[in-house]
Amino acid sequence: MNRYNNAKNNDVVISSRIRLARNLTNYPFSQKLSQEEATKLIDEVIGTIPFLEDRLSRNINGYTLSSIKENEKNAMVERHVVSPQLIQKKQSAGLLLSDDEKISIMVNEEDHLRIQSITNGMNINEAFITANRVDDILSEKLSYAFHDKYGYLTSCPTNLGTGIRASYMLFLPALTLTNSITKIAEELSKYGITLRGTYGEGTKTIGYLYQISNQKTLGRTEEEIIAGLNEIVEQVVTQEREQRENYIKKNFHQVEDRIYRSYGVLRYARQLTSNDALTLLAQLKLGVDTNLIKLEKDCNIYELMVRTQPGNLQHYANEVFSSSQRDRYRAEYIRNLLPDLLK
Amino acid sequence: MNRYNNAKNNDVVISSRIRLARNLTNYPFSQKLSQEEATKLIDEVIGTIPFLEDRLSRNINGYTLSSIKENEKNAMVERHVVSPQLIQKKQSAGLLLSDDEKISIMVNEEDHLRIQSITNGMNINEAFITANRVDDILSEKLSYAFHDKYGYLTSCPTNLGTGIRASYMLFLPALTLTNSITKIAEELSKYGITLRGTYGEGTKTIGYLYQISNQKTLGRTEEEIIAGLNEIVEQVVTQEREQRENYIKKNFHQVEDRIYRSYGVLRYARQLTSNDALTLLAQLKLGVDTNLIKLEKDCNIYELMVRTQPGNLQHYANEVFSSSQRDRYRAEYIRNLLPDLLK
Repeated sequence: MNRYNNAKNNDVVISSRIRLARNLTNYPFSQKLSQEEATKLIDEVIGTIPFLEDRLSRNINGYTLSSIKENEKNAMVERHVVSPQLIQKKQSAGLLLSDDEKISIMVNEEDHLRIQSITNGMNINEAFITANRVDDILSEKLSYAFHDKYGYLTSCPTNLGTGIRASYMLFLPALTLTNSITKIAEELSKYGITLRGTYGEGTKTIGYLYQISNQKTLGRTEEEIIAGLNEIVEQVVTQEREQRENYIKKNFHQVEDRIYRSYGVLRYARQLTSNDALTLLAQLKLGVDTNLIKLEKDCNIYELMVRTQPGNLQHYANEVFSSSQRDRYRAEYIRNLLPDLLK
Repeated sequence: MNRYNNAKNNDVVISSRIRLARNLTNYPFSQKLSQEEATKLIDEVIGTIPFLEDRLSRNINGYTLSSIKENEKNAMVERHVVSPQLIQKKQSAGLLLSDDEKISIMVNEEDHLRIQSITNGMNINEAFITANRVDDILSEKLSYAFHDKYGYLTSCPTNLGTGIRASYMLFLPALTLTNSITKIAEELSKYGITLRGTYGEGTKTIGYLYQISNQKTLGRTEEEIIAGLNEIVEQVVTQEREQRENYIKKNFHQVEDRIYRSYGVLRYARQLTSNDALTLLAQLKLGVDTNLIKLEKDCNIYELMVRTQPGNLQHYANEVFSSSQRDRYRAEYIRNLLPDLLK
């Protein structure tokens, strides 16, 4: 049994992600890659798709970044399918993406390959297994740069060794509301763990969403890195839950009121900025997770937070909006998807 | 036909009020009245009730102020049935009040008698006729202090002469939002007209509610005073309507959004302060009056503004609440009375 395959942690852990950095021996590192070599690299990696599809039994789509619309690229960043760095890259870059978006392979980002696997909830072992499988399959077709002493060679030394980055997306309302986040982030950095806001700068975030990940990859096995991060995340989960209980106990009427008001505004607003939506949906998520408010139907509120970001909103509408059109469409979109309250 | 008996003005004029100041020859003015004389005065005026009831064909209740619960007194002030001065008076004071609260007679406020009649909308002639009738009936039983040159003698010289104060309660969202109120109030004061906020200090008010009234009573007939005030109120009504149209045209999406959000908060909040309620209900009233939002059923929003003031809220609940209980009860009260939106 996978001890992390526990849906209960969904109240704090939104998703788990593994990213492996790989480089090929037959190309210079990305910084020194010529445009011609970049194109060749992308072609070579996209060429592995039939083999990947066969071995993984799933559909994989291949793209050169320049063929994807601006809007779609932003939507992919919002869904954490690609990194912001990939879409900002001036040189040619590529992307391999499974239909369910749980597997993505960025080509010519900082490294030749960034293999990523993402799963819902606290479920990093599944992500790790998937990423490893993709890695193994690709290694049959591509010539990885690997050093007996240093491990996988990477463009940036912080990725050297296993080339692994494990990360979780966390929902931490109580640790935010009690101003504990900055101190926790400082503490964690001593253990080589980064905690930063998903939307915003540093530990300032909107919607109580955070990314927690390992900083270094050298000198430890992948399993050790994941186990170390998990141990810390378990502690953060426990702290968040304890603080959540205390905070709500102490401020019950105020918290309850804020959650219901947020629901009321989401239900009736005629225009909502992305930040409005993130803020209000985060309140609603807190309410649903703590049973302070009950929806008539299940609703993935985090999904709604992502879908109402500018890129995704336009992606789902299949239109390009002005900023004010977007705010009105966002309000309408949420209104239509928001379940009634349980009577 | 009464030109002011026009329900259309309800979008700006909430109510009309006439107040007549009268004093009796057989008692010293209020400031010099002994406690014994005050009691006698109250008894004498309360003694006219059977006669008043007979002539007016309506029920009138008589009270000594000390017999009314604190809470009920505050509720009466909030409903503008009595003045704040009356309930703060240290000396004995009395009140005669018709069942529908359209007629009230304050005894031993600043003057021996303050006869007040109040009507809905812009309907001051009706209020004037009623107040005059009460005045005439009382003058048959009581000995009014009247001077051939100065008219009715009053405790404060500003009420001398006709002793009349005519006033309107106005709802002025657009003139407030465009910051025109202070300038208008300054302008009006030159014409002996006072415009001040109903809730708050000076022209700062909550819920866009204002009182407009004549300041002086000497040297003009009652009809002239009323006609002068009406002329000005008609202008204010016109200005408010014009500005409302312009303001909404210019800020349509923002105004619409604010109105709908207010509805959402009123619909779902778990606690509402009086100021919250006034502010949000004022937005809703603006929305309903301008057809930006449509309720499934008629709802007197101004009535709801008054009923959710602290005194009235407790009056209708028939309970005395702590401040936080009151805020929660207020939210529940509004939730239960607020109609759904028209689909």
